[in-house]
Amino acid sequence: MNELQNRILSDGQVLGHGILKVDSFVNHQVDPKLMDACGRDFAERFAKLGATKILTAEISGIAPALTTGIHLGLPVVYARKTKPITMPDQVYLTLAPSHTKGRMVELIVSPEYLANGEKVLIIDDFLASGQTILGLVRLAEAAGSKIVGIGALIEKIFEGGREALKPLGVPIESIACIKSLDNNKITFND
Amino acid sequence: MNELQNRILSDGQVLGHGILKVDSFVNHQVDPKLMDACGRDFAERFAKLGATKILTAEISGIAPALTTGIHLGLPVVYARKTKPITMPDQVYLTLAPSHTKGRMVELIVSPEYLANGEKVLIIDDFLASGQTILGLVRLAEAAGSKIVGIGALIEKIFEGGREALKPLGVPIESIACIKSLDNNKITFND
Repeated sequence: MNELQNRILSDGQVLGHGILKVDSFVNHQVDPKLMDACGRDFAERFAKLGATKILTAEISGIAPALTTGIHLGLPVVYARKTKPITMPDQVYLTLAPSHTKGRMVELIVSPEYLANGEKVLIIDDFLASGQTILGLVRLAEAAGSKIVGIGALIEKIFEGGREALKPLGVPIESIACIKSLDNNKITFND
Repeated sequence: MNELQNRILSDGQVLGHGILKVDSFVNHQVDPKLMDACGRDFAERFAKLGATKILTAEISGIAPALTTGIHLGLPVVYARKTKPITMPDQVYLTLAPSHTKGRMVELIVSPEYLANGEKVLIIDDFLASGQTILGLVRLAEAAGSKIVGIGALIEKIFEGGREALKPLGVPIESIACIKSLDNNKITFND
């Protein structure tokens, strides 16, 4: 069992309806040493893909994407959910359903930072239904970039995201893969 | 001249109205190695304060706060701007004006992660008017925490934030302190 799995067992809270609360070390309070260890782990798993850029979605994807970027020496782009005034008028924009907000959110990337021919590694905090990550895939493809790999800190395999992403034909890695949250019990896949 | 100052001169864009666009290495695309260097710099400057927690605001404060947390070995809490469903009903909430959004935004911290007696180091991307940081100060004080230091990647000294924060009587450090953006020219303070 790895460090993230141990932490999920000790500090994660199952809130019901398939929601796992990890606000004490990922989503509101962040454990930087744990994020650094996960970033190093992703860097090893994806070392040979020849990625040129890491793409994530604000907000909670930023920490693991950043530490992966430190260890791979790659720039990180985080898709914005609102367009800041510093962004040009012409952008890549897609919609994705937000699990925790219960509505569609926008994912926006400036063409300045996602170029034609880029080899993109997607890193996010959760892989659940895969809809956010598929939104990032659409943004990258709109820019003419190629997805080379997908990494998530925590996968909820029972929500089907891995199946939804499989047609992309790229490696999909999660550090903690959860098989079930039934009866408020966290069961990992390995 | 330090690494961040050099990068601002080479890649920063002055958009007018006092706005400095650093979207290619801080605010949309992030340079992880640069953020790591800035985190190490903050860790050295604030090493002796005995801080127990780092507090920042989503979204752009997360990267420098995280790398500072890696080097100081401290947990990072980022104030949320919308309340996620995983957060309890009773929260610390304050309002602060957003420079880039042109309206008031909420800053929300769960009492779970900001405790009475905590010694809080605030890290953010920009110190401009100081209003976001003063919002974080109010949240920390509401929790019975004590502010022990404030760090910003980029200070726009002509917007008066340092004066606004001075009554707190804590060290205020910025890695790139900008004296003027007049005539689209970036002039540092040192």
